[in-house]
Amino acid sequence: MLKYREIANELEAYIRDNKLQQGDKLPVLETLMTTFEASKSTITKALGLLEKKGVVFQVRGSGIFVRRFNRTGYISLLSKQGFKKSHEDHNHTSKILELDVRTPSEEVANNLGMSVEDEVYYVKRIQYVDGKALCIEESFYNKTLIPYLNKEIVSESIFNYITEALGLKIGFSDKYLHVDKINAEEAEFLGLETGDPKLDIETIYHLTNGQPFDYSKLTYNYKQSQFFIQENREL
Amino acid sequence: MLKYREIANELEAYIRDNKLQQGDKLPVLETLMTTFEASKSTITKALGLLEKKGVVFQVRGSGIFVRRFNRTGYISLLSKQGFKKSHEDHNHTSKILELDVRTPSEEVANNLGMSVEDEVYYVKRIQYVDGKALCIEESFYNKTLIPYLNKEIVSESIFNYITEALGLKIGFSDKYLHVDKINAEEAEFLGLETGDPKLDIETIYHLTNGQPFDYSKLTYNYKQSQFFIQENREL
Repeated sequence: MLKYREIANELEAYIRDNKLQQGDKLPVLETLMTTFEASKSTITKALGLLEKKGVVFQVRGSGIFVRRFNRTGYISLLSKQGFKKSHEDHNHTSKILELDVRTPSEEVANNLGMSVEDEVYYVKRIQYVDGKALCIEESFYNKTLIPYLNKEIVSESIFNYITEALGLKIGFSDKYLHVDKINAEEAEFLGLETGDPKLDIETIYHLTNGQPFDYSKLTYNYKQSQFFIQENREL
Repeated sequence: MLKYREIANELEAYIRDNKLQQGDKLPVLETLMTTFEASKSTITKALGLLEKKGVVFQVRGSGIFVRRFNRTGYISLLSKQGFKKSHEDHNHTSKILELDVRTPSEEVANNLGMSVEDEVYYVKRIQYVDGKALCIEESFYNKTLIPYLNKEIVSESIFNYITEALGLKIGFSDKYLHVDKINAEEAEFLGLETGDPKLDIETIYHLTNGQPFDYSKLTYNYKQSQFFIQENREL
């Protein structure tokens, strides 16, 4: 991992472990340079990353401050880590319902920028938090890019496998949210009533070269899920 | 406006107006420098901003490419402009239901980091798209920071007033989303049935110095609203 990313992770862990609150001031640049034995530019890059991630905010002339959303049990919409972090004290499990190779529907092929003749890995699973159904997940992976998946990989972290075993570089993603009523099958999986509210989040994950490799659709149990987003001034 | 922001806006407008698609390549740095009569660092800053906003993505060694979410009618969760852009061809109006000065509830005071004795401006309105109710908005502004509001200001852009008339610098914001069922009053405002799904989005807006100035709660009509988020690799 790049040094500035390591430092960013350490700083984030420090803020979390010491339960620093919104507005708490971080040590000055010089102190951080000494602590992490890093150059000014490296520390600046690390802080820039943390600012983008909404972990800190910088006030010109007066310093770097902790930015900490103070509601527990909220799932971050903006990072893979967000979920685990916001559910640190919770037990996160999942049950694989289906795992196979198939040809994609028109919609899936379109979202993955591939042809309906090409093959995808299809994964369907339920994610649980403390034994309660959080969401139903359906994911489609472009088999040309992800040539092999099995239950073991899927029950661990697919993204770790993709980056570490396959050496692919994960880039940006597009998320689409909409609210609707759940059908009978979803109600059964989520332990809710047909017609209850749901939040559907579709995500198209791209490699750094812009090629989509994963299209996933998560259907959330409205009783188990709350989300947060931290936005920065530039946006 | 800073030059790199102007250039970013022009580039974004260019991409939009010419309906460039995801993956379309932008001119090389040198060309952009000539076109905008700007330095390399200015262009780089502009492109960095557009990358953060999810308008372009950069592939090291091969160039800058358009990143364009290809679904219409989706509202951006990550920028004030997002709404207008995604609803460009739509008529966006609003009706003010309430506008007064009051003392905040415990919850509101907590979200604004103020005391329940302090005063807030309260604004309640319905937002419409093409005459259909999009959402119910309740906003609370710290009166110490926003000393005056009236119907005229509220029916224009409150944020323009805050930045231009009051000269305040708007910084980051925290958003909280959750899905639930609507009550009878919400159903009436939104033209839905009691118990229908809704998406509540609470936002706490901060000044660049980290002080919260606006706490708003929007209750969205699930039939009228779909949202998108463009996430970057760094997050």
